[in-house]
Amino acid sequence: MDGQMAPGVEAKIRESFARQTMMQTAGATLDAVGWGRITISGPVHPDFRQQQGFAHGGLTFALGDTAAGYAALSVLPPEVDVLSVEIKINFLSPAEGHLIAEGRILKPGRRIVPVAADVFAEAPDGTRKLVAVCQGTIIPVTA
Amino acid sequence: MDGQMAPGVEAKIRESFARQTMMQTAGATLDAVGWGRITISGPVHPDFRQQQGFAHGGLTFALGDTAAGYAALSVLPPEVDVLSVEIKINFLSPAEGHLIAEGRILKPGRRIVPVAADVFAEAPDGTRKLVAVCQGTIIPVTA
Amino acid sequence: MDGQMAPGVEAKIRESFARQTMMQTAGATLDAVGWGRITISGPVHPDFRQQQGFAHGGLTFALGDTAAGYAALSVLPPEVDVLSVEIKINFLSPAEGHLIAEGRILKPGRRIVPVAADVFAEAPDGTRKLVAVCQGTIIPVTA
Amino acid sequence: MDGQMAPGVEAKIRESFARQTMMQTAGATLDAVGWGRITISGPVHPDFRQQQGFAHGGLTFALGDTAAGYAALSVLPPEVDVLSVEIKINFLSPAEGHLIAEGRILKPGRRIVPVAADVFAEAPDGTRKLVAVCQGTIIPVTA
Repeated sequence: MDGQMAPGVEAKIRESFARQTMMQTAGATLDAVGWGRITISGPVHPDFRQQQGFAHGGLTFALGDTAAGYAALSVLPPEVDVLSVEIKINFLSPAEGHLIAEGRILKPGRRIVPVAADVFAEAPDGTRKLVAVCQGTIIPVTA
Repeated sequence: MDGQMAPGVEAKIRESFARQTMMQTAGATLDAVGWGRITISGPVHPDFRQQQGFAHGGLTFALGDTAAGYAALSVLPPEVDVLSVEIKINFLSPAEGHLIAEGRILKPGRRIVPVAADVFAEAPDGTRKLVAVCQGTIIPVTA
Repeated sequence: MDGQMAPGVEAKIRESFARQTMMQTAGATLDAVGWGRITISGPVHPDFRQQQGFAHGGLTFALGDTAAGYAALSVLPPEVDVLSVEIKINFLSPAEGHLIAEGRILKPGRRIVPVAADVFAEAPDGTRKLVAVCQGTIIPVTA
Repeated sequence: MDGQMAPGVEAKIRESFARQTMMQTAGATLDAVGWGRITISGPVHPDFRQQQGFAHGGLTFALGDTAAGYAALSVLPPEVDVLSVEIKINFLSPAEGHLIAEGRILKPGRRIVPVAADVFAEAPDGTRKLVAVCQGTIIPVTA
């Protein structure tokens, strides 16, 4: 499954990401933008923890959701924006260190874009562990 | 379906909630603690928005996840803590105003606690709209 | 949340149900059709069991999915059909006896219909137990 | 992620599959058994269709659920059986032809086994299309 982003789509994704205050608050960055594939990463920020000191599920979800949403946006025409219809997340391990969310489309739909995202935690020594998987549905909306 | 919290469980939930830095960062409060039912609320904080200015899905999810998790904790013995195994969220409407998450258990399991949460957005005039529904699985872990 | 079915919609739902060979094979019946609410029931048919003799998850899912799908169809214009985009099911207890699936819409969308279904197992003495809950997304398609 | 099945586990899986009457009714076969990976396939049986003549979602789900469940069983000790806690399925395309479900574990847990399954439809000319993806949770139970 391969394709090419319409002109202006990468810039649109970068501008949109910059408007997501939650991504800024969490210290997340948009690391890679490709057709149907997006990487976002950020720390397990001290202000986004759950009761045991690990990443709050809401932070892990936010990174996966955002990566998946922009993966969908990357295959859609330049004039649309996207909304998440639903996302399911399975948490595989408590997350600490640095989080990396890799979103991808499952099919380049025009009306419904099924998506997935894997979220990894990277330890200071560079080892990566899969900490969550997401599966969801994104739809285009007129911006 | 009805029951009674073990002694000390409500205090444990309140202390645990206070340790969730993400809830503090988002300005969320723990409003009601009952056997199998928890209410958490908070603003659509300016620092937790998506690209269109609505609540980021990660914020809505965090409130639903937290309410559902403590609903599970409220029916478990005092010596355990909980982890979210998985949660699925369907977003029904873009969320703005004040968010109210009502978590509940679906069955008082000892090993697996199926849970649900409804998230409402309350407008300044007091009208409420259901903006998201969550369905998930929580497990007890030794603290 | 209340409304009224468009003329001809109930008949359309009943005809559509009759074309679902899986429902016939499983011995399921369409018991109630209302605006946004559908009840389907059927036995834990001997030909639809899992390895321990309980209802196969695929049977429980099929009843919940079908009830949810027709709940969506009941609030849509008469000229459309529906497709399931996604459904998540949590199994609360092994199911035996007679299954009753109650589907409902969560919001009467035109483009996306969020739905839910509860599946109960009824014992010979008439007691009911909630055995599964479903949460999903249905979309209209031109028939 | 790699491992080896405990002695007797493959035979146990094959016997268990043979007891699933729904798999027999649907004409499904257990095609491959490996550590953490299971393939099941079967026709879009005329008795398992939805209203438009495509595979009923309950059939597609049943194949994915079963493949995922046995993928979990394959990494567990020989004395346990498994139950599905929850599964979410996204339907990508209407399914016709022959269905192939590939289940896999996402992590070899002892207490909770996160799983996934892809379901493909194979046309008479041998071309395959991904028609559904599943993500779920399986737990061991004492048989």
